[in-house]
Amino acid sequence: MKKSLSIISPEIKEILRLPNKKEKLNEIFAEIHPYDIFILVKDLMPAEVAEIITALGILKGIEVFEKFKIKKQRRIFRHFSQEWMADVLEEMPPDERVDFIKALPEDRAEEILPLVAQAERNDIKKLMQFKEGTAGSILTTEYASLERGITAKEALEKLKLQAPNRETIYYIYITDEGKKLIGFISLKKLIVSRSDALINDIMNEKVISVSVNEDKEIVAKKLSDYDFLAIPVVDDNSRLIGIVTVDDVVDVVIEEDTEDILRYGAAGEYIDYMGSGPFQIARQRILWLLVLVIMGFVSGWVIQKYAFQLQAIIALAFFIPVLTASGGNAGTQSSTVVIRGLATGEVKMKDVIKVLKKEMLTGVLVGAVMGILGVVRALIANKSPLLGVTVGLAMVATVIIGTTLGAMLPLLFKKLRLDPALMSGPFISSSIDVISLFVYFQISFLIIK
Amino acid sequence: MKKSLSIISPEIKEILRLPNKKEKLNEIFAEIHPYDIFILVKDLMPAEVAEIITALGILKGIEVFEKFKIKKQRRIFRHFSQEWMADVLEEMPPDERVDFIKALPEDRAEEILPLVAQAERNDIKKLMQFKEGTAGSILTTEYASLERGITAKEALEKLKLQAPNRETIYYIYITDEGKKLIGFISLKKLIVSRSDALINDIMNEKVISVSVNEDKEIVAKKLSDYDFLAIPVVDDNSRLIGIVTVDDVVDVVIEEDTEDILRYGAAGEYIDYMGSGPFQIARQRILWLLVLVIMGFVSGWVIQKYAFQLQAIIALAFFIPVLTASGGNAGTQSSTVVIRGLATGEVKMKDVIKVLKKEMLTGVLVGAVMGILGVVRALIANKSPLLGVTVGLAMVATVIIGTTLGAMLPLLFKKLRLDPALMSGPFISSSIDVISLFVYFQISFLIIK
Repeated sequence: MKKSLSIISPEIKEILRLPNKKEKLNEIFAEIHPYDIFILVKDLMPAEVAEIITALGILKGIEVFEKFKIKKQRRIFRHFSQEWMADVLEEMPPDERVDFIKALPEDRAEEILPLVAQAERNDIKKLMQFKEGTAGSILTTEYASLERGITAKEALEKLKLQAPNRETIYYIYITDEGKKLIGFISLKKLIVSRSDALINDIMNEKVISVSVNEDKEIVAKKLSDYDFLAIPVVDDNSRLIGIVTVDDVVDVVIEEDTEDILRYGAAGEYIDYMGSGPFQIARQRILWLLVLVIMGFVSGWVIQKYAFQLQAIIALAFFIPVLTASGGNAGTQSSTVVIRGLATGEVKMKDVIKVLKKEMLTGVLVGAVMGILGVVRALIANKSPLLGVTVGLAMVATVIIGTTLGAMLPLLFKKLRLDPALMSGPFISSSIDVISLFVYFQISFLIIK
Repeated sequence: MKKSLSIISPEIKEILRLPNKKEKLNEIFAEIHPYDIFILVKDLMPAEVAEIITALGILKGIEVFEKFKIKKQRRIFRHFSQEWMADVLEEMPPDERVDFIKALPEDRAEEILPLVAQAERNDIKKLMQFKEGTAGSILTTEYASLERGITAKEALEKLKLQAPNRETIYYIYITDEGKKLIGFISLKKLIVSRSDALINDIMNEKVISVSVNEDKEIVAKKLSDYDFLAIPVVDDNSRLIGIVTVDDVVDVVIEEDTEDILRYGAAGEYIDYMGSGPFQIARQRILWLLVLVIMGFVSGWVIQKYAFQLQAIIALAFFIPVLTASGGNAGTQSSTVVIRGLATGEVKMKDVIKVLKKEMLTGVLVGAVMGILGVVRALIANKSPLLGVTVGLAMVATVIIGTTLGAMLPLLFKKLRLDPALMSGPFISSSIDVISLFVYFQISFLIIK
């Protein structure tokens, strides 16, 4: 398969020059999956992609179009005919359509929307109300549904008719006259049931659903916990609004993890990295860097306070980097574990005391080993046992502070419902820096004077 | 729903004391989803859980049992009767069964395996061969399959019979006499087809499959790229071995992201954090910490080399923390973005030059702003313009080194196929520390003498 794809790739541009390109393209792409077509054409010019998508016909074309990022979608869209623009908007899955329209400049949207059929326009209007990040923002209205009172056989007949424009028919939702969700049945169950069985009798009445305002991460977690292929989304009156399908869950999880990782790396919100210039990237990062510079000045100020001590024993300076780094590293380890544990649900808020104990003891153990290394190095560097003791003790203290603070700060911030974006790794490290420098110089002051 | 669950919870322990507990439990749990039962019983003692699972009957019981982590599964398993142990092993989905058996002590496994039916034993033997982390390790052999030459109607009849013990019947695979995979059809397509259509004519012959030795992350990515519900797994002779279903993909993605995050945080491989004691955790973290301590000594050694300079101008020490932190922070930002970009496929190896330019320019921009702050602070602290110039220049240089090295080190390590585990954030920061201290003191030496 891979082989045949790579043979096709260079041919495409040539085919676009032929008079019978439409037939040729259809011939080549006939049995190729839309995702593979996307891979083949994604680096072509937007006008060329638009031409290929048009040639494929709306059903297959739309599936290729969907694979592009919104930015590129907009560029391709411009090259469609008016008629095609309307077709594309009508055929896109409702959730992706809304995202796409939201990304259009307003005047452009106003120009195109009248071309779209009334039914879709209503749908768009409805979906546009839902807030970003909620179940409403990722649902699709193309679900399979049946009324009660029909038999399994009749249900299958009806499903046949619904199938072509439903995102999934493997889960079927049963609603009453007021669109209230009253049951659910899987196609598997429907197929193994006797053909004269009534839907009412074979459907599952305990339907697990989510509210339209539910956070989309919670929706993803629920869908995956229950191993569902889709989950119904209802409004405040238990009326069925749409479904979220499992393929969106993977995207939500990846997106969410990306957000968490960037946040922890103090790299700001997600932006299209490869598509952004240095100015955009710099703007994205500078705020955190400046905050951390200020914290670095505080660390410097601690040293300044003890300048007399440092002046007397210049060798104290040799251990500043290793002590601050060690506290930061121990803190990075424990905060990484705790923040990830909170995200996956392994660590819970009620575990605070357990975590605290665990990290303090871990700090004692690793700190002791690191402290010994510090003593040895200090004795080699300076042959002063007092400096050795100072460095050793400071190392143990710093590491314990590191593991403990690293684990507690994320829990504290979550508890206080403070913006978790404040809880980056560098911020944790910088906080530990200040404390460990103070501890270091204070110990040296007490021991060496 | 939530409400009724919380009412049940305290009742369970009481019910376990009743003589008719089996009926009672079945009554309460009749329409409750296995995941919700899991949530309700998960904090009970293993013996109690075993009792409840037994009461639920094998089909529903096994679904509850599956939700537990392997460690807890083993504890519950001990409390089953001999007969139940065999039943549980026979009914578990093949992929989970293998994981479970692998986790058993060897003598225990040898004791139980003879109780399992021959067919399952063969299956277990086959699946146990596959390497951890491959498609083979997460596949299930319970897929729906049909031979060619039958009609859609006959196919549906056959599916009805297969359905009860298949993980999914929504994708059906067609194999020839030698078990070679020759086609695939979705249940949706089958249902909308005319009942006398031949499978051969309506099946899709271009089946997208993965090799049994394929990395499981690649399998997950492929499944999600193509928006499949399952993907077939074949051996070197294109024979169908099993399928990987979409619900496993979410787990693979979460697991993989957890691994990446812990690795970046220098926190070692994933261990059961809440279930581990300080000794285990310390063992997990100490190696990295010691490596980083050594790197910290190298930083200290740089300072030692310039001790004469520092002795002359003690104020130089005040800026050691802010400079090392700033280089590390800039490096953390860029390495976070690049490592995540590599994981999601947004950044590719061929982008090296683009990324290098982007990060150098970003470094210049943010470094300049931070440098100005450094100059101001140096003038306030020391009123020496020369120190100001030194700190400012060192800051700019450090930050550029930070952004560049932070982005390049992950790319370099990937290019060299070195163990990516070496590429932790703290390691990147420590490398930058050494260079920036050297640059700082060298600049000060040249400017101030």
